[in-house]
Amino acid sequence: MNAHPSDQSVFVRACRGEAVPYTPVWLMRQAGRYMVEYREMRSRVTFQELCRSPELVAETTVFAQETIGADAAIVFSDLLLILEAMGQELNYPTGGPKLGSPVRTAADVDRLKVADVESDLAYVWEGIAATRAGLQDDVPLIGFSGAPWTLAAYACEGGGSRNFIHAKSLMYRDPGAWTALMDKLVEGLVPYLVGQVKAGAQVLQVFDSWIGALGPDDYRTFAKPWTARLIRAVKEQCPDTPVIHFGTGSATLLGQMKEAGGDVIGVDFHTDFAWARDLLGDTPAQGNLDPILLLAEPDYLCERAQRIVDANAGRPGHVFNLGHGILPPTPVDNVKRLIEYVHEATSV
Amino acid sequence: MNAHPSDQSVFVRACRGEAVPYTPVWLMRQAGRYMVEYREMRSRVTFQELCRSPELVAETTVFAQETIGADAAIVFSDLLLILEAMGQELNYPTGGPKLGSPVRTAADVDRLKVADVESDLAYVWEGIAATRAGLQDDVPLIGFSGAPWTLAAYACEGGGSRNFIHAKSLMYRDPGAWTALMDKLVEGLVPYLVGQVKAGAQVLQVFDSWIGALGPDDYRTFAKPWTARLIRAVKEQCPDTPVIHFGTGSATLLGQMKEAGGDVIGVDFHTDFAWARDLLGDTPAQGNLDPILLLAEPDYLCERAQRIVDANAGRPGHVFNLGHGILPPTPVDNVKRLIEYVHEATSV
Repeated sequence: MNAHPSDQSVFVRACRGEAVPYTPVWLMRQAGRYMVEYREMRSRVTFQELCRSPELVAETTVFAQETIGADAAIVFSDLLLILEAMGQELNYPTGGPKLGSPVRTAADVDRLKVADVESDLAYVWEGIAATRAGLQDDVPLIGFSGAPWTLAAYACEGGGSRNFIHAKSLMYRDPGAWTALMDKLVEGLVPYLVGQVKAGAQVLQVFDSWIGALGPDDYRTFAKPWTARLIRAVKEQCPDTPVIHFGTGSATLLGQMKEAGGDVIGVDFHTDFAWARDLLGDTPAQGNLDPILLLAEPDYLCERAQRIVDANAGRPGHVFNLGHGILPPTPVDNVKRLIEYVHEATSV
Repeated sequence: MNAHPSDQSVFVRACRGEAVPYTPVWLMRQAGRYMVEYREMRSRVTFQELCRSPELVAETTVFAQETIGADAAIVFSDLLLILEAMGQELNYPTGGPKLGSPVRTAADVDRLKVADVESDLAYVWEGIAATRAGLQDDVPLIGFSGAPWTLAAYACEGGGSRNFIHAKSLMYRDPGAWTALMDKLVEGLVPYLVGQVKAGAQVLQVFDSWIGALGPDDYRTFAKPWTARLIRAVKEQCPDTPVIHFGTGSATLLGQMKEAGGDVIGVDFHTDFAWARDLLGDTPAQGNLDPILLLAEPDYLCERAQRIVDANAGRPGHVFNLGHGILPPTPVDNVKRLIEYVHEATSV
């Protein structure tokens, strides 16, 4: 649906595994606190006001892409908005997001709604439409959601967590309730992602940000079936839209993540990129620079970026990215330098 | 040095890779907040008073081992005590340990002392001696320290961390200062561990608790040389004392950890145990149940323990343990049940 000039961009073609004239680059959290313009905007509006304003979403997203010269834009939004649409109160105090009424029992799961995306999350689609209108025609736009496990973990913990004790306790103690929770998430996530494509996204990324909390056995039982169902359902409706499937702490899960689906598998920085590419075979891969290298001297930053280029060894289907999101103290000049460097180093 | 009857225990023999009549079990943090007796003691003394009292260390350590029926005791102590001996102020407020004057520059590294273990950490050795005296003769005692990288990370961050931005920034921006910091740590750690053996420990464990923050390239450059030097130096002085080398988030590092040294490699719960044993070959392995499974129903707990026994497939040199420390809400009865179960399931 919605053929767009940027479907032929270097980034989208790399996602399809095609040979491209240089390795495309975008960076997770490329619009955010490391930019003074973002901090200035946030001094005027809250995080939630920003997420809910299509104009500000477009402004933030387009500004970041144009400033750093990334090969794609990713819509400014947040993984947790869908949990608010499912009935959890959502706040962003200093120190990380907080969700009200954390899910701890089967009764808590029963109380959650399936997100009514049309009525409660249309503002995300409007943000995508406004961003698409604001971007240059040749720049692809990425929409995204959390993966079911990561969202369920947030719902259970009520925010960030070190051990995921509540999520895992529910998994282990009440697999029926866990199944019901994951089912509800997927039921809302499918139309949420499909709607992002309809609104103007050329590519989707599914973030399983906390999947590294699980070992391979638990992933197989408690996470993979729902991620697979989500990606399959989205691809049925949007067969031409590449889906990037990313997790962190996922080295021991990469083979299963590939099985779960995704046209591109995102690789975190704990994983040797050459090893990951061997494991993934012909499946395109995204990654995987440690974001803290963006705080190093530019020469060392470029040396480490070169190692990833070398690890890729000229294979088609590489999207250069960080192995995790940009951190707030990152110098913008280093971000620009990295992107230029990867373009130069991979130009054929 | 110090031959002891428990050198012939099932646990120590398993650490040496010998065939044993059943798989020995101990659990990281087996003495701690999940026990009401521990919480009662801690209502009377602070964490640091406990660590500094040989009598209370012995009481806590011996009580836990005897209560749960573990095949080894591990001295009650803390990784960070050596950083206090190096000159960093150390406190344990609610929310995790805090170190004063975090190390951020070469000048900060210069200001750190090499720990004078004899004068500043002798209380740990006295705790080991008292514990050894309190344990049954056939129960082996484990001494321990942090690995250099994990301690350096604590020193730089000033406490716990999500991204290890300060430690990695120092590593990447000033490798000379990083080298000096790691050198100083190892210089104190060697006599610290050797002294624990002299005081009565039969086995040592080196905890690289935060090593999972590094990818394989960074581990090779910034961590492995010092861990290797530490283990080599300790083994030169204590050739008969098994060293367990444990890390978390370490799936992508296991091969290098084996190269760095250790008679036993500790495997965290993110790693498939059969895969780890194949990778490690004849090197004994410890692990690797997810500690949150101790919050599950006993039947499911035992089912999951059985999967690890099955993954080990009868290979000698397996020490059953968690893949991470016991969490405070763990029911003591589940801990006892787990240990009984593994003993029964593996008895020959």
